[in-house]
Amino acid sequence: MKITMAHGSGGKTSAELMESVFGKHFKNSVLDKMEDAAVLDINGKVAYSTDSFVVTPVIFKGGDIGKLCVCGTVNDLLMMGAEPKYLTCGFILEEGLEVDTLDQIVASMAAQAKAAGVTIVAGDTKVVEGSGGLYINTSGIGIIPEGRDVSAGGCKPGDKILLSGNLGDHHACILSARMEIENDIKSDCGCLKDITDALFDGNIDVKTMRDVTRGGLGTILNEIADTSGCRIELEEEAIPVDEEVRGFADILGLDPLYMGNEGKMIAIVPSDQAEEALRLMRDTEHGKDAAVIGQVKEGNGTFITTRLGGSRVLDVLYGEGLPRIC
Amino acid sequence: MKITMAHGSGGKTSAELMESVFGKHFKNSVLDKMEDAAVLDINGKVAYSTDSFVVTPVIFKGGDIGKLCVCGTVNDLLMMGAEPKYLTCGFILEEGLEVDTLDQIVASMAAQAKAAGVTIVAGDTKVVEGSGGLYINTSGIGIIPEGRDVSAGGCKPGDKILLSGNLGDHHACILSARMEIENDIKSDCGCLKDITDALFDGNIDVKTMRDVTRGGLGTILNEIADTSGCRIELEEEAIPVDEEVRGFADILGLDPLYMGNEGKMIAIVPSDQAEEALRLMRDTEHGKDAAVIGQVKEGNGTFITTRLGGSRVLDVLYGEGLPRIC
Repeated sequence: MKITMAHGSGGKTSAELMESVFGKHFKNSVLDKMEDAAVLDINGKVAYSTDSFVVTPVIFKGGDIGKLCVCGTVNDLLMMGAEPKYLTCGFILEEGLEVDTLDQIVASMAAQAKAAGVTIVAGDTKVVEGSGGLYINTSGIGIIPEGRDVSAGGCKPGDKILLSGNLGDHHACILSARMEIENDIKSDCGCLKDITDALFDGNIDVKTMRDVTRGGLGTILNEIADTSGCRIELEEEAIPVDEEVRGFADILGLDPLYMGNEGKMIAIVPSDQAEEALRLMRDTEHGKDAAVIGQVKEGNGTFITTRLGGSRVLDVLYGEGLPRIC
Repeated sequence: MKITMAHGSGGKTSAELMESVFGKHFKNSVLDKMEDAAVLDINGKVAYSTDSFVVTPVIFKGGDIGKLCVCGTVNDLLMMGAEPKYLTCGFILEEGLEVDTLDQIVASMAAQAKAAGVTIVAGDTKVVEGSGGLYINTSGIGIIPEGRDVSAGGCKPGDKILLSGNLGDHHACILSARMEIENDIKSDCGCLKDITDALFDGNIDVKTMRDVTRGGLGTILNEIADTSGCRIELEEEAIPVDEEVRGFADILGLDPLYMGNEGKMIAIVPSDQAEEALRLMRDTEHGKDAAVIGQVKEGNGTFITTRLGGSRVLDVLYGEGLPRIC
């Protein structure tokens, strides 16, 4: 069965889709009330975020748009030091989408939400003309435990920069699929909760965290350098990249520093805690290839010391990047 | 200037669009931090909702997709008895969209958010291929004052049903634009805060509220009858419809009971407060054509007493409705 415009009518056919797909996978006491809005009890400092996902293909090696849209918003909340609690999801379905594909994606969302400890409490579905694709928006709320203060402006000269693993996997995976290149590259699409839990449980005084997504490491570090009023210096040699991804990037003239990721983060920590933070990260599933890749200094801008020992400016991404990577 | 895929890269070109359009109109202390998520202090019972907007044309008589996407989510929060506080917005822009059009829509969002007393605290922009259209998702958080308990299951036999004004304006407006029919029909797109404020300030013990959107009054009342385990009886004669909209609907064979609206609500109130509630509604800008249209009884299902005195079942909307009405 395929999605038709009637599934977006708000009437009987919409209700049937709600029940047979969304209701089946997302069933919970808040959502089951079918109100215009979820009613929740919330107390304290919260993180609140949104992201839309337009990735194509919608199913790829290592994940799908459903896993991605849960992990993406959950990761945004985690990066503020929050414990993700609630998600909403807004579906825009293109006419012709196979209901079986939608079912697979929604099941993937439900599984990922369960793994991340978040509840999907409100949703919405629209149908538009098109060729069987879909877009998903998620928004999320997380609770920030008392005493936590993580922000893009929080780092100081002397702090060390940790990267949780190899760069470029998601970008290379999506591009391989689009170019119909056969290889073993899998997206890193994943939830970073194991890493943030390990750092906070290990009493690391995390200054700044950021997931390294669209725009790549170069763009994100420039934003942090700007916001914190510091200079960031990286060691190119220390930055982990999978060998197959490096080969793929080399052939296509791509720089892993600007390739998108969906399960990688940086954490900026005090210098004297960097070794312990690295050990904690490496003990997690999503942080096993973590490395200390640079440090924060007085000044401004972002610089990288190349393999040959020279230093160059690392600017933000110019131009197109890879369209519809996330 | 038109939107290009580079505006979705997450790099320099994206940042320029953020600054020149979104930053200009949405500027506020939370958003200006440019973090992955907004950090807010929230305490108590909250309503949390999301909606995606795909209406076409994006600018229409009486509003645009920007006004609509703020009012839509704000109204959903209001219907739970909440005071809307924070919004997020996720833009999916189609390549070729005129930046001037985007600017106009974003300005409209900012104006409507200000009028409704909500702050836009987080956002996201993606670009996809297409023909210059756009989709917007909004999510919202509202605070529910202590002691308020409004829900779809809250009404009881004996309660009266109030409708805030004429049915079908938005539907007729959008359809007129698509069919290129010249008339004076304007969308009712608007924020219902004046009505909900009037009811609560007037100490009306509101049991249930619902905005009457996609699917129309028939569908929404059926949902309420189901959830509350009651029977709903309407008086066809009492249901307000603008004369021009009625003429338009008659010609096209449309039933105003199933036409979509974007600035109409029902409120179900105790019988002995119905007269006062009606007076309060009629004193507001958005409720000036309000009417008592029926009552809640023992039993189940939704029924309507026709102009000729007969009673018929009022079912939910079957089939397509109007595609991309909201």
